[in-house]
Amino acid sequence: MDGMWADLLPVGRDGTTGGYRRYAWTPSDLACREWFAGEAARRGLDLVVDRNGNQWAWWGDPDADGPGVVTGSHLDSVPDGGAFDGPLGVVSALAAVDLMREQGVVPARPLGVVSFTDEEGARFGIACAGSRLLTGALDADRARRLTDADGTTLAEAMRAAGHDPEQLGRDDETLRRVGTLVELHVEQGRALVDAGAAVGVAHGIWPHGRWRLDLDGEANHAGTTRLVDRDDPMLRLAAAVLSAREAATARGAVATIGRVTVAPNGTNAIPSRVRAWLDARGADEADVRAVVAAVAVAAGTEPVEESWTPLVAFAADLRDRLADRLGDAPVLPTAAGHDAGILAGAGVEAGMLFVRNPTGVSHSPAEHAETDDCHAGVTALATVLVDLTGARR
Amino acid sequence: MDGMWADLLPVGRDGTTGGYRRYAWTPSDLACREWFAGEAARRGLDLVVDRNGNQWAWWGDPDADGPGVVTGSHLDSVPDGGAFDGPLGVVSALAAVDLMREQGVVPARPLGVVSFTDEEGARFGIACAGSRLLTGALDADRARRLTDADGTTLAEAMRAAGHDPEQLGRDDETLRRVGTLVELHVEQGRALVDAGAAVGVAHGIWPHGRWRLDLDGEANHAGTTRLVDRDDPMLRLAAAVLSAREAATARGAVATIGRVTVAPNGTNAIPSRVRAWLDARGADEADVRAVVAAVAVAAGTEPVEESWTPLVAFAADLRDRLADRLGDAPVLPTAAGHDAGILAGAGVEAGMLFVRNPTGVSHSPAEHAETDDCHAGVTALATVLVDLTGARR
Repeated sequence: MDGMWADLLPVGRDGTTGGYRRYAWTPSDLACREWFAGEAARRGLDLVVDRNGNQWAWWGDPDADGPGVVTGSHLDSVPDGGAFDGPLGVVSALAAVDLMREQGVVPARPLGVVSFTDEEGARFGIACAGSRLLTGALDADRARRLTDADGTTLAEAMRAAGHDPEQLGRDDETLRRVGTLVELHVEQGRALVDAGAAVGVAHGIWPHGRWRLDLDGEANHAGTTRLVDRDDPMLRLAAAVLSAREAATARGAVATIGRVTVAPNGTNAIPSRVRAWLDARGADEADVRAVVAAVAVAAGTEPVEESWTPLVAFAADLRDRLADRLGDAPVLPTAAGHDAGILAGAGVEAGMLFVRNPTGVSHSPAEHAETDDCHAGVTALATVLVDLTGARR
Repeated sequence: MDGMWADLLPVGRDGTTGGYRRYAWTPSDLACREWFAGEAARRGLDLVVDRNGNQWAWWGDPDADGPGVVTGSHLDSVPDGGAFDGPLGVVSALAAVDLMREQGVVPARPLGVVSFTDEEGARFGIACAGSRLLTGALDADRARRLTDADGTTLAEAMRAAGHDPEQLGRDDETLRRVGTLVELHVEQGRALVDAGAAVGVAHGIWPHGRWRLDLDGEANHAGTTRLVDRDDPMLRLAAAVLSAREAATARGAVATIGRVTVAPNGTNAIPSRVRAWLDARGADEADVRAVVAAVAVAAGTEPVEESWTPLVAFAADLRDRLADRLGDAPVLPTAAGHDAGILAGAGVEAGMLFVRNPTGVSHSPAEHAETDDCHAGVTALATVLVDLTGARR
């Protein structure tokens, strides 16, 4: 496991912040994909890149003997993300394969390791784009037209990276191979710290979504335009930010405006436009909708829904089985979206394991997990994979 | 005049917004500088580029027969600025020279046309950088270290453009040549519309400054971090924006937060840092300081002063003379900074003419002045230049 970390650690890491900038279809992302292909080849796993760019490395033949059991996560990052969110699940999956082989285990069902494409949506704005395309939750035409900050479309970015964007869309052939999915992920909170456990099992994923606020005003001179003559969209942003916090507090939900762009963004110019993105999540859909409604009133505009993920309740049988095999591991809710949630929403039997995060910090260069806990995660993952694949020694 | 406009119009214009992006030492700026040198050469004016990059085109020899009378403005723009702010003063200066020559006028004192460098400060954050360096109001070491959004220093940008940054600093040789400066500028308000006049004279410039707000927080996951555990600097930005407006309203001042950068700027990441810039101006210094103090409390941080320009009262004798020669033209205060204000602050006899702006809109692609008013501006400028240079026919 440590060797894999060492190879992956420098890829896409910013020298100043120490954070990762592995955005879909950029050179950093392609380096990660190449790393994954290399690790698959080194283990004699059969690599399949599906039509949506997700990478699958199979031990056994899922078409002949499937459907199989799949484990993995993603390698891309948020801007200045940490080293663990995503990669821990992929590295642990490969390490679990190694551990099973060291133990002389032979799975009775095919075992796949997956690296999903563009989970964070950092570049094109849609989280879990690879799994949403796979399940048809994201329309292929819409996906191809998504643009990054430079105006490059997803279709152009994929084509430049050697992947044909015309093939995007729901992929039943790939889905048929996946009988069960178990995604391991670093915890993005402190519940396992409180529970005193290195590894936990996911209960479900809060409903959550992203909304874009297009706040239009009138560009003008910051010195010579009287306050009463101004139409300054920055004031509406301020109202939106404060109302999002207030409404989320009232509902026990969470709401964040963490991405803002300003045009023309000059010190002495009243903005012509402020764009902001609202991320809102809550225990039930009504809570989230109430937050969005409050922001709409404060911002004076109807937020544009860019993505929406309903409540995901992971399959109860699988969840109970994972917790049981791990010696009554704690079962936790989460407010973060994951590819496992997208597949669960599409009817795949899916579940998740979490590895303890000592500070709860995530989406930051400070994100961390202790080495012992990472190793405990691999052991736990191998244990459940042995169980799920009906492996024999 | 129309031919000059036609040549200059496409330079640095964005095809989408129709606004100008002529930032100091970029290719657009260099194209403007080349245009100016060509116009000087076409008229047989002697071009001098001073140590700080300002361009001077002389009719007559200011070293032998000076100090001279200077007119002009700047060619750079704010992001997505209009066509008139700056260029109108330079084009009108050259057109006034043409008009004087057509009339067979020979100035008794040398007449200079100036194009100041980096008036807007759009790239490196300091407005009137060329004139501030010239007068010593901006320290050369500090200027060289200023960085743009890509981290390029002013020194590097100048060097790449073929200008030696080691030469920056107060330039008495150049200043000695300037006996009187008259800058013509499009009005950035509607006072001339209300007065029913095409041309007006500046009374003075409100004290004004720019402050940077460094709002530090803790990057974290937007879904999984409880609200009570967050340190989200976007909330402090919101408070700062609203307090700036409230304090400015109370003081009859103006305050703007029009430039914001967010790190990491991801939809599902609580920001680690928000940077914002406050532009504040008022009739007297106490008003402006009160606004900054209110913002400091709301933002929870002491704003960093990036520039400060005290009240500029243009030389009363010159102001009265300009108004008188123009048939009792209206005299207006302004809240916009100008190079003429920087030189006035350094003891140069300086004044300004304004040309009517039908909407008052400025720092926007919608900025406008009617052609007849622009021609009236040239005629007015030629009139005062004839007077100030003691020209004979």
